[in-house]
Amino acid sequence: MMKEISGGVCAAQGFKAAGVHCGIQADGSSEKNDLALILSEKECAAAAVYTLNRVKAAPIYVTMDHLEDGTAWGVVANSGNANACCPMSHENAEAMCLFAAQATGREAGDFAVASSGIIGQTINIQAVQTGVPKAAAALSQSGSGNAATAIMTTDTVPKEIAVSFRLDGKEVKIGAIAKGSGMIHPNMGTLLAFLTTDCAITPGMLEEAIREVSAKTFNRVTIDGETSPGDMAIVLANGMAGNEQIEWKDESYEAFCQALDYVCRHLSRAIAGDGEGAGRLVTCRVIGARSEESAERLAKTVVSSSLVKAAMFGADANWGRVLVAMGYSKAPFRPEHVDMAFESAAGSVPVCKQGDGLAFDEELAKKVLSEKEVVIAVNLNEGDDEAECWGCDLTYDYVRINGDYRT
Amino acid sequence: MMKEISGGVCAAQGFKAAGVHCGIQADGSSEKNDLALILSEKECAAAAVYTLNRVKAAPIYVTMDHLEDGTAWGVVANSGNANACCPMSHENAEAMCLFAAQATGREAGDFAVASSGIIGQTINIQAVQTGVPKAAAALSQSGSGNAATAIMTTDTVPKEIAVSFRLDGKEVKIGAIAKGSGMIHPNMGTLLAFLTTDCAITPGMLEEAIREVSAKTFNRVTIDGETSPGDMAIVLANGMAGNEQIEWKDESYEAFCQALDYVCRHLSRAIAGDGEGAGRLVTCRVIGARSEESAERLAKTVVSSSLVKAAMFGADANWGRVLVAMGYSKAPFRPEHVDMAFESAAGSVPVCKQGDGLAFDEELAKKVLSEKEVVIAVNLNEGDDEAECWGCDLTYDYVRINGDYRT
Repeated sequence: MMKEISGGVCAAQGFKAAGVHCGIQADGSSEKNDLALILSEKECAAAAVYTLNRVKAAPIYVTMDHLEDGTAWGVVANSGNANACCPMSHENAEAMCLFAAQATGREAGDFAVASSGIIGQTINIQAVQTGVPKAAAALSQSGSGNAATAIMTTDTVPKEIAVSFRLDGKEVKIGAIAKGSGMIHPNMGTLLAFLTTDCAITPGMLEEAIREVSAKTFNRVTIDGETSPGDMAIVLANGMAGNEQIEWKDESYEAFCQALDYVCRHLSRAIAGDGEGAGRLVTCRVIGARSEESAERLAKTVVSSSLVKAAMFGADANWGRVLVAMGYSKAPFRPEHVDMAFESAAGSVPVCKQGDGLAFDEELAKKVLSEKEVVIAVNLNEGDDEAECWGCDLTYDYVRINGDYRT
Repeated sequence: MMKEISGGVCAAQGFKAAGVHCGIQADGSSEKNDLALILSEKECAAAAVYTLNRVKAAPIYVTMDHLEDGTAWGVVANSGNANACCPMSHENAEAMCLFAAQATGREAGDFAVASSGIIGQTINIQAVQTGVPKAAAALSQSGSGNAATAIMTTDTVPKEIAVSFRLDGKEVKIGAIAKGSGMIHPNMGTLLAFLTTDCAITPGMLEEAIREVSAKTFNRVTIDGETSPGDMAIVLANGMAGNEQIEWKDESYEAFCQALDYVCRHLSRAIAGDGEGAGRLVTCRVIGARSEESAERLAKTVVSSSLVKAAMFGADANWGRVLVAMGYSKAPFRPEHVDMAFESAAGSVPVCKQGDGLAFDEELAKKVLSEKEVVIAVNLNEGDDEAECWGCDLTYDYVRINGDYRT
């Protein structure tokens, strides 16, 4: 039985974290935490998934390099600067790992590094150099909350979760922190997620697991269709739970993936619901598809559509926009087979049957779509596959946040 | 020598047009023209390009059918209802052609038909039936303006243009009207363009020409990344200019394409600049590319990016967002080779050289980006190909227009 527990990224045995303020923002205007450190007391199997953007921030390349051997001890991360598209970016990303190593008695190659914030400006590496020893001194098992706030940019709430489940009679835990709410203040690493577990699992299996689970969770979130140069999700597994090491795609692997999926799904929904300026979490669930791939493509296109997002902002049951977005998704489906309904805690309103509009109660529809979480439920009536994707509404605040951040 | 002339869609010899109010909007709230008719006094070679959306409005299918023989005499079109995703849509699209035929002494198959407006509601065909004879009676050589307003939805200005050029010593004219400013009030045929010419050209060559030119003009406009079920561009050529009929891709064909390109480019820029809620026309010009295809993909991704569009709204020289959008375009390029500048009538501001940010005068940049027309100029420094695409900024008004239109 899996259950949610407290402790965030420090919930699993042997992990400590810290978040401190070191003043990365050039103008020193903010006292917010901006530097996070996560450390395991044992070596971890380590795996990560990275942005597919051709423009990659330097920390992506440095982390890829440091994780090549499948192991790591910790993560150092900052907000306020993306360390991308600027002179010295590679050197500074390496320096961050070196500072972390010096402050913890390890080596630079033992650390993953991540940065999120302004693109195109050289990071204030002196601030980082001063901050890392402070963070190392502050490492504790109750540090998850501070680490979570240290990686926030325009996020309005920190994102943390942990779960516990059993493998071979042992209690195994997975914990995580994440950030993300658009391309932000100014050009952000949209999504950073740091996951820790005491599960014993090989680097190869860990990489399989994070790839498989990310594809169905993080990769199904969209705030504004933008991918950033700094996106990454990293998982560290130190094996301290004492389960038999997972080496194959067996039942234990499936159980681990299920718990990892729960964690990543929670973070994904939290990120979508906290999208820049977002008023509500919008889920598009497509069922009755001929393949999961086409269901995913349809659902993702719907939650990415500016017109659907604007309609969700207005709590407007504009199902035609949903059908039209599906139409340009390039996924195969027959419009004349499509059933559609809008759903939320306030009820369910069928709006379209076999491609034609239904008469519906506009007042009820308004009520349903005015909830904080709404579902666009689509049935293609063509097969048994399904997928859901998460996004948010398009609001005046999105335009405000992104229209004039620098001046 | 090609020159711009007046007369719009009636500029070419033998074409008349009309626009009237017939009351298609169910609530009868608007007195705006909502029904347009265009008629040639001779049979025309006819060709069209259509939306690629899988969800196609009934008029698309009916027009495809009627133009299959490569000929037509005219166009009947309405605003206020897209005649899509509703019962009787096909029958009603055919009926519109029949009404036009009855009112003009022709046959239903001689007409193309187009509708733009609300999706999912059955069109008020009685209103159309009453309106078509009114429109037929009003047909005149000075009717282009009325026809242009009759196809407008959330457009704020009518779009008309005509040009004249010489072929074989004869004066040849191309005229056009168009509409488009997003997916509108509610779900709109984003783009309708009706072009007329007295050029003598075979249906096959006419189709080649409209395909070739549309690909470089209409298909390079984006307001919000949405394609609608009703998009189409139709060209009618009645041959009355008396030039030798164009039958091959010869010099005359090239001259015709050049004039057609001028007309379509003008309409495309007018549509982009009149995007829903748009404050300015944003052009992205990519040069130094290894192929025109990749230049186009990069430019289109940039003008489609919500973050770039929001930055343009804020007149914010946020070049990092441009580079990041290029990065997720899936077109090949080397970020470290990219030069970038923002340009307008107020000057030019280089912001990025070989992938790294340049120091620039923020005040000048603000001034440059505050103009009505701005250019994002990108040099990939990798080859000799180029392309430009047109879009607009993302404003509060876009969210307002699309967030709450029905209630």
